Order: sequence, then structure tokens, then C-alpha cells
Amino acid sequence: MSERSELRYWEDFPVGTEAEHGSVEMTEEAMVAFAREFDPQPFHIDPEAAASGPFGGLIASGWYTAALYMKLFALSELQDSASMGSPGVEELRWLAPVRPGDVLTARSRVLEAWPSATAPGRGTFIGEHEFVNQRGEVVMRFRARSLMARRPAADG
Amino acid sequence: MSERSELRYWEDFPVGTEAEHGSVEMTEEAMVAFAREFDPQPFHIDPEAAASGPFGGLIASGWYTAALYMKLFALSELQDSASMGSPGVEELRWLAPVRPGDVLTARSRVLEAWPSATAPGRGTFIGEHEFVNQRGEVVMRFRARSLMARRPAADG
Repeated sequence: MSERSELRYWEDFPVGTEAEHGSVEMTEEAMVAFAREFDPQPFHIDPEAAASGPFGGLIASGWYTAALYMKLFALSELQDSASMGSPGVEELRWLAPVRPGDVLTARSRVLEAWPSATAPGRGTFIGEHEFVNQRGEVVMRFRARSLMARRPAADG
Repeated sequence: MSERSELRYWEDFPVGTEAEHGSVEMTEEAMVAFAREFDPQPFHIDPEAAASGPFGGLIASGWYTAALYMKLFALSELQDSASMGSPGVEELRWLAPVRPGDVLTARSRVLEAWPSATAPGRGTFIGEHEFVNQRGEVVMRFRARSLMARRPAADG
């Protein structure tokens, strides 16, 4: 478990902690593949139909955008943390269309953090999560509640 | 466009409209495949690590559960409708772990509906969406705002 020697706990993410989690370039191929499986609406899967549709072209499924955010966040923050999952999300907003070629950068900020009153080994966060495109526009924003183990006394 | 002859518009989903959108059986293979790509946390991708983790076994990524709900909803409701996408979601809750072998049934209800004040051809809904497992437990619930074209006058 040497790679876990720097495992991060609830105490390591105080209120105000900000981080960037990397970027991803959207490709039409991957956008359409996801949407064919999970969100088969014309403006997500059919470039021709999308061109005359409500968005004037193909856009990513909002669930694909959310899943890609999760990927970047998990790889940069959760893989070396004592994450215990999330009970939910507030105010998920798809604020601007995401199109092929867009480059989205993930960033987050810890808004609130408190130790569990009932589970001594656990703490909760509320984080604000944003995906920003190459023009600086926030294309998706949500707040998520996350659970994480507290640092064991022996590590303290 | 004969398959579109019964295209449904905003007027066709009045407040109180309830519908079921079909069911899906969760498989470990598909759960792990999604999570390896989008949510690589041990309790989503590694059955052995998951067994000793916070959920006592492998559970689905919440984003996979949401994407599968979207699939059923899109196939049963949106494919023959004048859907114009969604600006966002409120109070998305993952209420109970989703495990391999679970069978989830999608259902929704129209909570609010109003015509757009600024775009005469469009209306908005707020819908409540639930995924219920084989024991009748609601495993995921969220409210979503959805946009849909109004019925053209010629069709009225």
C-alpha cells in the first residue's frame, strides 16, 4: 500500500480549498457514442438533424458532461483520498451548450465542511464544481455533498 | 417523417401526468465498465476492495444510475416529443446503494408546467424523476427542468 502513503482525509480539505482537476477536449465521436447509449435525442446524436434543431448544431448530453467532470475530479482528487461517496447534488446547471472541439477545464471549491455528528470516523463536504470552456464560460456548475473518512488517530 | 405523426408537444404533458419508462437490470460488468471510464473509485470498480469498503460491496456510480435513467426516459418519452433539452436538475439524491442484479424501474411525474413568457413557441416543465428497485426502494430521485416546443397552431 505504499502508493497510499499520502492518503488524504476529510481534514485535508478545509473550507476554501480550491483546485483545478485538468481538462478534456470534447470530440463529436465520443459525444455521439455516449448519447447513443444514454441520451438518444437528435441534438445529441445526429449532426444533420442537430443543425436545424434548437441548438443549431450537435451538443453534448448534459449527463456526459457531468460524467467527464466526475472522471477528472476522481482522477485528481479522489484516487488518493478516503472518499466515501456522495448522497447527492444540488442545483446542477447546464449553462451553455458544449460542442465538439470545446476544451473543458474542471475546478472546485470547498464551500462547507463539518464532522459527522453520528459517525465519528466521517466528515461531510459541500463543494462547488464547475466546468469552464476555452472561452472562460462556465458551461456546467453544481454543488455536491461528499463524504470522506476522517484521519485515524494513529495518523494524526 | 411518418413516424413523427404523433409527435408530442408541451401541451401533451399537463401537471400531474405520471408515467413509467421501463426497467433495467444492473450488471457488474456494465457498472464497472462505466466507472472505469468515468468514476474510478474502488467501490465502483474493484469488487474485492469494495467488499471491505464503505458500502460492503460494489455499487454503481451515481452518474451511471443517472445516465441509465436518462436512457429509459429518452426512449419512452422524448423520442416522439418536441424536446428542447434541459437547463438543469435540482436535489439529485442517491438514496440507496445500487448493486449488481438490482432491477431498476424509471417513473416520473409532471410537477409544474408553464408556457415561456419570452419564447412563444416553448414551454417548461418541472418533473420529478425516480428510479425504484425490485424491493420498491427509491434508489435515486431528482427534479429536472425540461423545455419542449408548444404545438404549432396548424396542429392545434
